[in-house]
This record gives sequence, structure tokens and C-alpha cells, in this order.
Amino acid sequence: MLTFAIPKGSLLADSIRLLQTIGLDFSAFLDESNRLLQITDPQGRAKAMLVRAQDVPVYVEYGEAHLGIAGEDVLREKIPKVARLLDLQFGHCRMSIAVPQSSPYRSGLSLPPHSRIASKSVRITQEYFASIDLPVEIIPLYGSVELAPITGMADAIVDLVSTGRTLRENGLLEIEVLFHSTARLIAHTLSYRLDRENISAYVEKIREVLSP
Amino acid sequence: MLTFAIPKGSLLADSIRLLQTIGLDFSAFLDESNRLLQITDPQGRAKAMLVRAQDVPVYVEYGEAHLGIAGEDVLREKIPKVARLLDLQFGHCRMSIAVPQSSPYRSGLSLPPHSRIASKSVRITQEYFASIDLPVEIIPLYGSVELAPITGMADAIVDLVSTGRTLRENGLLEIEVLFHSTARLIAHTLSYRLDRENISAYVEKIREVLSP
Repeated sequence: MLTFAIPKGSLLADSIRLLQTIGLDFSAFLDESNRLLQITDPQGRAKAMLVRAQDVPVYVEYGEAHLGIAGEDVLREKIPKVARLLDLQFGHCRMSIAVPQSSPYRSGLSLPPHSRIASKSVRITQEYFASIDLPVEIIPLYGSVELAPITGMADAIVDLVSTGRTLRENGLLEIEVLFHSTARLIAHTLSYRLDRENISAYVEKIREVLSP
Repeated sequence: MLTFAIPKGSLLADSIRLLQTIGLDFSAFLDESNRLLQITDPQGRAKAMLVRAQDVPVYVEYGEAHLGIAGEDVLREKIPKVARLLDLQFGHCRMSIAVPQSSPYRSGLSLPPHSRIASKSVRITQEYFASIDLPVEIIPLYGSVELAPITGMADAIVDLVSTGRTLRENGLLEIEVLFHSTARLIAHTLSYRLDRENISAYVEKIREVLSP
């Protein structure tokens, strides 16, 4: 049976809606009382597992899910061995550098060498600063990255921004966009190549919904 | 002013309670409507910042907090450069190996070479299996590790167990305890050595509360 890995969090509702447009109903995941992490659609044609956004590429890479929905930011950070099939055109956000409003710096390039940069996305941060040949100290954090410049632990942060509200509320200013991110449809490479479980037909249906 | 890094999540309530016994009131963090990540105690003697459990050692290592409360499991995974001062005797849990109930294996040693082990604690998992000279494939996950053996992606998991309820609900069996964990009081090394902000007096007060 075709299996999807669906991300918890900000991409969940749009992911469910997209799959509904191609006839697969996993809306039970939106029910707050739901505790199940795996469900089958009512018509018994496909299965979905609900996992952390960062874990979607893992389940797809290992072939536990044939298809998955993951943010471009997660794919850039993890670089999983999966086939990247479609830009799903939702989950718009951007990976940006932000500094305290009082900071004199207004671009990535203008930050002084050995600045401390807090981020949940260590690889992306490393690659960006390597690309502009600026040696920085990266402070890896798990959450509330916006706290790091407030306390003075970091000079800047690299973080995902969607509305910018969290930055504003914490007195931070977005000074550089590293890249824009949206949700992507990814597939287990071998399953996709062998077209197991009719994967390509489902991918084609999603493609049609996206560009009617 | 003395600054504490306090962990969100399962150690939060006990951490607040402990600090109350030495006269520092950060109970505002327990108020669900609270959105502040930094507060000062009503008597203005100390400050606390509320951060992810895994980020506490980072704030302490960088000296943004003089003292912090972190689980032994987090300290073993991150190996931060901090002073480990006291076992706080709460937050009891254990790092364990679990397998599906249908698995024939009943100990870490009996797992076959090249087993797939899913875990959020990659370093701890690596070190354990290196210590018994068993080559395994580690699958790093961020959440819901218990899902990995259910889907068949992993043969076993290494995860933190407190009551064992999550394991039971997912048909998993705990077969080996790697170590027991409790909350620890940690300090920024230099601040502690220089006894900034009277750190040692606070540590002594906490020690007295623990072993009256």
C-alpha cells in the first residue's frame, strides 16, 4: 500500500488538504484528540504516518514511506538521499539572518569575523558563511533561537522566518535572506524508479492539482 | 545579577520548586499564559531564562547563565564544558534499549551486527554499541522514536524512559538500561571558579535543601 510521511507542525494542515484534493483523506490527523501516528485512508488505498518535520526525509530515505512532504529548509539542512519531485507551493518562509535592532550590521557580509551566530540549522549556517569566506562561531540551539541575541550570547541568528512576528516581538531585525523555502514532495528513490504502488500516478495527480 | 538557565518540559516544575526552597521565585514560568523567556525574581536578586532542555548547557557553557539545570542524559549526549555540581534528585528516568515485543532479542549484546537503531541520542547510542564492539546502523530522529520499530525502519531504539507507558502503548519492550538519569545543577566554569555573584552560597543552600 502507498505510504506517505506527513510532517507535524506548520505544514500539516496544508499537507492534509493537498492529499484530499487527490482523493486521500487523512484529516483524522487534524483532530486534536487523535493519538495515532499511523492511519489508513477510509477507502483503504494509502497509509500515512505522522512524524516530526525533520524526520520526514529519514522515513522516506529508508523506504518506510514511499512519498513524503518536507520543507526545502529541512532538505537543505539534512541533504537526504531522496528524489525531490515537486514544489508544493505552500509553507512559504525564508531562511534569514537577523540581528538586534541596536546592531550596526545590516548584511551578512558586513558582520565582523568571529561573530557568534546561533542557529538550529548548523549546516546551512556553515555553508552560507563559508560561501562568503567569513569565519564565524556557530552556536547550535534546539529552540527559541531569538533569545540568544537578547541575552548577548550571539551577535546574530540564522533562522526560519514566516511572518516576522517573532523577530519583531524580540527586537530583532532581518538583514539578509539566505533562501526562500516551500514544502516539497519527496520520494524514496528506488520505489519511485520502480514505480512501486503506482507512485507516478499519484505524483501526476498532485502535479495537475498544482498547475491546473 | 545571578542568572539561571531553566529547562522547559518535564524538569520545569521541579526546578521552580527547588529554587523556591532557597528563596528564589520564578513560578511565573509555570503560568500557561506567560510568554516571557526571561524573568527576574520578585525580590530582584536573580534572573532566570527559560530555554529548551537541550539548550541549557549551551547557555551555561557560554556564560549567559551562571547556573543551570540539565538532565544527566543531555550532559552525556552533549558533553558541554560546564562544572557539574550537584545531583538534584528529581527527574528520574533511564536511557534504555527497547525492541518490539515480537523481537527475539532480550539484551543489547544479543542484537545482531548491523541492526538498525533509531535514537534522538546519537552519541550515547554510538558509545554504547562501540563499548560492546557491536557495529550497528544508527538512524537519527527528532521525535516519536517509538514509531521507528513499529514501521519496521529500526530493529531497536535507544530512548529515555520514565514510566514506560509510551513503550507499552507502542508494543515495545525495554531490554537493557544503559544508565539512570536525574537532573543536575551545572555552572559556568569560570564564573564558578571566581565565585561571581555569590554562586557558591546559592549552591551551598541547594545542597543543604537536598540533604537536610
